[in-house]
Amino acid sequence: MIDEDLKGELELFRDNVKRFIEAEILPHYDEWEKADIFPRDIWNKMGEQGLLSVDTPEEYGGFGTNFLFSMVIIEEFTRANCSGLGVSLSVHSDIVAPYILNHGSEEQKKKYLPKMVSGECVGAIAMTEPAAGSDLQGIRTIARKDGDDYIINGSKIFITNGQHADVVIVVARTNLDVSGSKGTSLFLVDADNPGFKRGQNLDKIGLHSSDTSELFFEDLRVPASACLGKLDTGFHIMMNELPRERLTLAVGAVAGAEGVLAMTADYVKERQAFGRPVATLQNTRFKMAEMATDVRVHRAFVDECCRLFLEGKLDNTTVSMAKLGTTEMQGRVVDGCLQLHGGYGYMREYGVSRAFVDARVQRIYGGTSEIMKELISRKVLA
Amino acid sequence: MIDEDLKGELELFRDNVKRFIEAEILPHYDEWEKADIFPRDIWNKMGEQGLLSVDTPEEYGGFGTNFLFSMVIIEEFTRANCSGLGVSLSVHSDIVAPYILNHGSEEQKKKYLPKMVSGECVGAIAMTEPAAGSDLQGIRTIARKDGDDYIINGSKIFITNGQHADVVIVVARTNLDVSGSKGTSLFLVDADNPGFKRGQNLDKIGLHSSDTSELFFEDLRVPASACLGKLDTGFHIMMNELPRERLTLAVGAVAGAEGVLAMTADYVKERQAFGRPVATLQNTRFKMAEMATDVRVHRAFVDECCRLFLEGKLDNTTVSMAKLGTTEMQGRVVDGCLQLHGGYGYMREYGVSRAFVDARVQRIYGGTSEIMKELISRKVLA
Amino acid sequence: MIDEDLKGELELFRDNVKRFIEAEILPHYDEWEKADIFPRDIWNKMGEQGLLSVDTPEEYGGFGTNFLFSMVIIEEFTRANCSGLGVSLSVHSDIVAPYILNHGSEEQKKKYLPKMVSGECVGAIAMTEPAAGSDLQGIRTIARKDGDDYIINGSKIFITNGQHADVVIVVARTNLDVSGSKGTSLFLVDADNPGFKRGQNLDKIGLHSSDTSELFFEDLRVPASACLGKLDTGFHIMMNELPRERLTLAVGAVAGAEGVLAMTADYVKERQAFGRPVATLQNTRFKMAEMATDVRVHRAFVDECCRLFLEGKLDNTTVSMAKLGTTEMQGRVVDGCLQLHGGYGYMREYGVSRAFVDARVQRIYGGTSEIMKELISRKVLA
Amino acid sequence: MIDEDLKGELELFRDNVKRFIEAEILPHYDEWEKADIFPRDIWNKMGEQGLLSVDTPEEYGGFGTNFLFSMVIIEEFTRANCSGLGVSLSVHSDIVAPYILNHGSEEQKKKYLPKMVSGECVGAIAMTEPAAGSDLQGIRTIARKDGDDYIINGSKIFITNGQHADVVIVVARTNLDVSGSKGTSLFLVDADNPGFKRGQNLDKIGLHSSDTSELFFEDLRVPASACLGKLDTGFHIMMNELPRERLTLAVGAVAGAEGVLAMTADYVKERQAFGRPVATLQNTRFKMAEMATDVRVHRAFVDECCRLFLEGKLDNTTVSMAKLGTTEMQGRVVDGCLQLHGGYGYMREYGVSRAFVDARVQRIYGGTSEIMKELISRKVLA
Repeated sequence: MIDEDLKGELELFRDNVKRFIEAEILPHYDEWEKADIFPRDIWNKMGEQGLLSVDTPEEYGGFGTNFLFSMVIIEEFTRANCSGLGVSLSVHSDIVAPYILNHGSEEQKKKYLPKMVSGECVGAIAMTEPAAGSDLQGIRTIARKDGDDYIINGSKIFITNGQHADVVIVVARTNLDVSGSKGTSLFLVDADNPGFKRGQNLDKIGLHSSDTSELFFEDLRVPASACLGKLDTGFHIMMNELPRERLTLAVGAVAGAEGVLAMTADYVKERQAFGRPVATLQNTRFKMAEMATDVRVHRAFVDECCRLFLEGKLDNTTVSMAKLGTTEMQGRVVDGCLQLHGGYGYMREYGVSRAFVDARVQRIYGGTSEIMKELISRKVLA
Repeated sequence: MIDEDLKGELELFRDNVKRFIEAEILPHYDEWEKADIFPRDIWNKMGEQGLLSVDTPEEYGGFGTNFLFSMVIIEEFTRANCSGLGVSLSVHSDIVAPYILNHGSEEQKKKYLPKMVSGECVGAIAMTEPAAGSDLQGIRTIARKDGDDYIINGSKIFITNGQHADVVIVVARTNLDVSGSKGTSLFLVDADNPGFKRGQNLDKIGLHSSDTSELFFEDLRVPASACLGKLDTGFHIMMNELPRERLTLAVGAVAGAEGVLAMTADYVKERQAFGRPVATLQNTRFKMAEMATDVRVHRAFVDECCRLFLEGKLDNTTVSMAKLGTTEMQGRVVDGCLQLHGGYGYMREYGVSRAFVDARVQRIYGGTSEIMKELISRKVLA
Repeated sequence: MIDEDLKGELELFRDNVKRFIEAEILPHYDEWEKADIFPRDIWNKMGEQGLLSVDTPEEYGGFGTNFLFSMVIIEEFTRANCSGLGVSLSVHSDIVAPYILNHGSEEQKKKYLPKMVSGECVGAIAMTEPAAGSDLQGIRTIARKDGDDYIINGSKIFITNGQHADVVIVVARTNLDVSGSKGTSLFLVDADNPGFKRGQNLDKIGLHSSDTSELFFEDLRVPASACLGKLDTGFHIMMNELPRERLTLAVGAVAGAEGVLAMTADYVKERQAFGRPVATLQNTRFKMAEMATDVRVHRAFVDECCRLFLEGKLDNTTVSMAKLGTTEMQGRVVDGCLQLHGGYGYMREYGVSRAFVDARVQRIYGGTSEIMKELISRKVLA
Repeated sequence: MIDEDLKGELELFRDNVKRFIEAEILPHYDEWEKADIFPRDIWNKMGEQGLLSVDTPEEYGGFGTNFLFSMVIIEEFTRANCSGLGVSLSVHSDIVAPYILNHGSEEQKKKYLPKMVSGECVGAIAMTEPAAGSDLQGIRTIARKDGDDYIINGSKIFITNGQHADVVIVVARTNLDVSGSKGTSLFLVDADNPGFKRGQNLDKIGLHSSDTSELFFEDLRVPASACLGKLDTGFHIMMNELPRERLTLAVGAVAGAEGVLAMTADYVKERQAFGRPVATLQNTRFKMAEMATDVRVHRAFVDECCRLFLEGKLDNTTVSMAKLGTTEMQGRVVDGCLQLHGGYGYMREYGVSRAFVDARVQRIYGGTSEIMKELISRKVLA
C-alpha cells in the first residue's frame, strides 16, 4: 500500500517542506515566539506553497494527495522544533478541513475548502468549555432554533487559532431533552458574525507562536444551513474524526521527539565537560540510547497506525494508544534532552527549552492521557 | 512481503502449535517447573510435531519455512507462559541451528541438522564465562592446536540446555597474539567427548523448567574439522548471528507480555473487591490501559523488525533497541500484572508469579540492557 | 527521647542480634529456603537468646524494652537478607504479641505472653480470606454464639506462620446485622483445637523459609473468654494496631534495601568487566548513587516514624505513607541491584536473587500499595 | 537542639514572612514575572522587614538567629510559588553572606554585611563559565597579580542576581601552575568597578522574576584586599560552603512541592468533571497519594539534614543526596500536579504552570543531578 513510487513522492515533498521551513519559518520563529503569535500572512504563504489541507480533492481546490502528505508537513514542522506553528496547521488541515470535507454539504465544501487550501480562510474548532474540559457530556453552549435560524450562546476555551480563525466549527447542544452527547450539533460559524467574540490570546507556558483563545457566542445567529452534518449528530461526527485528529498528534509527537533527540546528539558531541565531549560520558551515552530506543519504538507504532488509517482500519482504541504512548514518550524525551544540555537547556535561546515547554501540553489537549486510558481500558477489559 | 497467503499459513501453523502446547505441555508444566527441568523426550516430541528448527532447508531434514514460522513457535510458548521451554527451544532452533546452517561445512550440516530437526540432537551454545560476563574480549577458554586437532581447556557458565545438550558450540580463543575478540573460533563439541563435563543444573529464581549449567572442558580434544566457520572468525560469526538471536528474545518478550496481560485481564474481571470486580476500579483500568499500550507499541516495533529481518535489513543497532525495549517493557508489565493479582500473584499456583520470575532474566541474558545501551549509543552518537 | 544512653544500648543489642544471626541463622539459611520452612526449634533458640517479643513487660516474661529494640531485630534479620525469618518473627513479636498485650485480658496475657517470649508458643494472625483480600468488610468467617461458647466456621489464606503457629488470632464476624467491619471480633484460637485445620504450606516465589498457609475452621468451638478485647470491636482493635504493623514492614523494607545495596556495592567493586571493576563504570556509579539516595531518604522517614510512634503520635496516614514509600523503594532497589549482578543475580546462590523475590510481596501484604494510596488520599484530599 | 521554644519562635517568624509575602509580593508577582525581573526596591523592602541574611551576627548588622530562620524564609517564598524571588534571596542570604561571614576579613564583613542585611547591597556569586559548566577545573577567568592589585579577565554565565548585584564573588584562577581547582581564589568585586560589565538579562523558560546574567570582566582591577579568604584557597572555601548552598536548594524543593501539592488538592476538590469533583476519581486520589508520600518522605530527610547542619555534621555526600533527591522529587510532583489541572495547567494564569517551569532548573543549577550522582557514588563505592 505504501509502494516505492509513493515513498519517492513523499520524500520529494518532504524536501520541499523542509526548504520552505528553513527559508520562511526558521529565520523568524524566535520573533514570533516572543510576539506570542505568528503573523497572519504566514497562512497565505503556506497556502501559496501548497502546504495547507493538501489532501483536499482537486474539485475543492486541493491536491487530492493521500493523508500521508499532510503528515509529512506536520512531521517537518515539529521536527524543526516549530510545534506552535505545527499545531495551528494541523488544526486547520487535519481537523477542520476533513470535518468539512467528510460531513459538509456541497455548498459548505465549495465555500470553505478552496480558501482553506489557499490560506485565505483559517479554520478552528471549538469543543472544550471552561466548565466541561474533556467531558463532551457537560457542554453548555446551546444552539436554539429560531425560525430557520439557530441562535448560539455560550463560550469555549483553549481554542487553537482562536485569534486567526475565519471559520470556527462550534459544538453546541441542539436537543436539551437527551443526554449531552446525543443532542449535540456542529455549526460552521464565520468569524465576522456579529455574535462571535474572541477573547484574549491566552498566555501559555509554551507553544507561544500558536494563538489560543477563549471564544464567546452572544446571541450568535446562524442559518440552519450552517449546520455541519445532520442535526444532533455532532457527537457521532466527532467520534468519526477522532482517529485522524489523534493520529496527527501522535505523528507530531514522534517527529518532535526525533528532532529534539537529533539536536541533543549534536549538542553532546560538541559540548565539552571535564576535558572531553559530554557524548563520551557513559551516562550521556546510556540516556541517549534509552531515549533513541523509546523514540524508535513509537516511530514503528505510529507508522503502523498511518498504514492502518490509510486502509480505513485504525480503530479508536489503537489511535488512543498512539496518542497516549507517543505523547508520554515525548514528555520523557524532552525532559531527558533538556537535562543533557545543563544550564543552557533552561535558556530560551536553546531549542531544547522550547521543545520542553511545547511538549508539555501534548499529554493534555486532544484528550488527556487520562481520557485515553479510560478509552483504552474499555477495550482491554471488555 | 508478508502477503495474505503467508499470513494464512502462519495462522494455521499457529493453531497447531497452540494445540500441541495445550495437549502436551501445559498439563505437565508445573511438574517440570518443580523438577527444575523438563524431560528429555519432550525434545523428541517437539521434533515429531515439526516444531524444531523449522526453517532448516529440506535437504537437511527441515521444512524450509521462512523465519516467521520459527517465531510463531516462540510466541506461542511464551504467550502460554512456558518461557522456560521457550528459551530452551529458541537456543536450539534460533541460535544453534542457524549457526550451523549459515556457517557450517556440508559435513557439519549433514551430521547435525537432521537430528536437530528430529530432536535427537539438542543444541547449546557456550559463550559466557565466569570471569568475563558479556565481555567477549575477556574469554579465557583456549583451543590449542595439537597436530590436526585442537585441545580445549576452560569453562563456561549460564549455558541454556547445558544438561540436555548433545552438541555445544564452544567459543574459544585460537590466537593469543591478537586481542580477545579477534582470535576466537567456534567449535562444535559433542557432549559425549570425554573432555566435556557438565556442571550441576544451576538453581535460578525462575525459568525453572529450563536447564542452565556450567560446562567444563578439560583437555577436550576435537579434530580441526570441528571448527565452525573459518578459524579465528568466531567473533565475526557471532556478530552476524546476533540479529536473529536478539530478535528472537524480543519476539518472546512481546508475546510473553501479551500472554500475562490477557491472563490479568481475565483475573481482574473475575476477582471481586469491595463488592465489585477489580476491573471496575479506575486504578485497575488505567494500569491495564498503560500496560496494554506499552505492549502494543512494542508489538508494532517487533513486527517491523521481523519484516526487516526477512528482507535482510535488520541492523545491529535496531535489533539491540528491540532487545532493550521489549525486555524492559516486559519487566514493567509482569510487575504491574503481579500487583493487580494481590496476594495470589505471589503464589506459584498463579501463572503471573511464574511470568514475573521468568521475565527477570530477559534484561540480562543475550546481552544485558547495559550492553544494548552501549551498542545503541555508538550509532546514536556516531 | 532517643538519648545517647538509649542509642548505646540499642547498638549493644544490635551487635548481639548480628552475632546470633551469623552464628545460628546464616549457616543454615539456604537449606531452610530449599526446605520451604525453617525448623520449629529456631523459635526456641530465638526465645532463649531473648529475641522474641522483647518489649513485653517483665510481668509477662518479657524484657520491657521499648519498641526500638524490637525494630533492631527486624532490621538485622532483613539486612542480613533473612527476610523470610524476619517476617515470621515480626508477625509473632510485632503483631500478635502487641495485640494480646494491648487488648487481652489478664488471663490471656498470662497464658500466652511468657510462652511467646520463650518461643514455646508461636503466634499468627488470620485476617485475609480467599474471597475478600484486603477488604475487611467482605469477611465471611463467622463466629456463632452457642451457649457460653462461639463456634467458628470459615477459612483464611496467606497466613504467615500458619504451619508453626500455636495460637492464632482469628478475625470473625460476630454480628451479621451490621456491616462487615463493625460486627467483627477477634478470637485467640489454640492450634490444638480439633476444629482448627492447617492447609498446606503455600508455594510462593519468595520468602521460602517462612511458612504461609491456608487455615480452615470447621465448627471450631472456643469459650467466650477466647475473645480478644470486647465483642464486636475487632475492626477497631485492628485499626489501633495497624501503625505498629505497618511501621514494622517499613523498617524491614529500609533495612532490607540497605542490606542489598551494601551487598551490591561489594559485588561491583570486586567484579571485573572489560578489564576493570564494574564499580568504575559511570552507569554503575550513577545507579548506585540513585539507589543509595533512595534508601537514605526513606531511612530518614522511617526513623522519624519510629520517633513518632514512641511518642504516640504516628497516625494512620503517615504510617501508610511509610509502608507505601519504603516498600516501593525496596522494589526499585532490589531490581536495580539484581541488574548490576548480571547473570549471577538470577542465581539463587547469590543473595541479591533472594532479596529480589522476597521483596516482591512487600508491596502486597500488610495492605497493598493500592490500599495505602486509598487511605492516604482520604487525608490528602480531606 | 530544636526545642519547643525555638519551634515557637520559628512559627512566629514564619507567620511574619507569610504576611509579608501576601501583602507585598503576591499582588505584584505576575507583573514581575512578565517583566522578567522584580524591582530593585524589593531588596530594600525585604531588608526593612528583616528578611535578608537573618543569621548574620548582630555586630554586622544582622539578627544573629540560627540558620533555620533563613530556611523559613526560603520555604515560605517557594511554598507561595515565588521561587524566582526565593532563588534570588537564597543566593544573597544563604550563599554570598555566609561566604563573607565565614571567610571574609573584618574589613570585608564590616563593609558588606550590614548593607546586605538592609538590602542596600545585593550579592551574587560568579562561578560557572560558558565553557566549563559545573566543572570548576575548567575555569578560565584569570586574576593576574599586578603590583598590589589583581587584574581579572574572563566571563561568567548563569549568574543569579546578575542585574541587581552590587557585589559579586568572582571565582578566578590565581595560580596557573597547578591544576585548575587548586589555584583558584575568590574576589569580592563591586559592580561599580569600571572593568565589570553585565550582559543581558538571560531569557529563561521559568524563574522569570529572577534575573540571570552573563558577566564580563575586562581588565578589572581589584586590590589584593578584595580577595576573600586566603589566596589560592577558593576551591576549598567553595567546598566548605556547599552544604549550606545545597541544603538551601533542597529545603526550597520540598517547600515548593508542598505548595504545589496543596494548590492542586484545592483545585481537584473544586474542579468538576463528568458531574463530580475530579478529587473523587480514583486516578486523582492515587496520584495525589503518591505525590503526597513522595513529598513527605523528602520532608523527613530535609528536616534531618537541617538538624545535622545545625550540629555541624552535614557531610557533602548527605547534602548531595538531599539536593538530588528533593529536586528530582519536585520535578515529578510539579509534572503530576500540572497534569491534574488539565488544560488550565498549561496557562500562565494558573500557579501550577509557573511551578512547573520554575522547578525545571532545580535539577541543574547548584550542581546538576549528574554531578550529585558522581559525588555520591564516590562515597557509596569507596
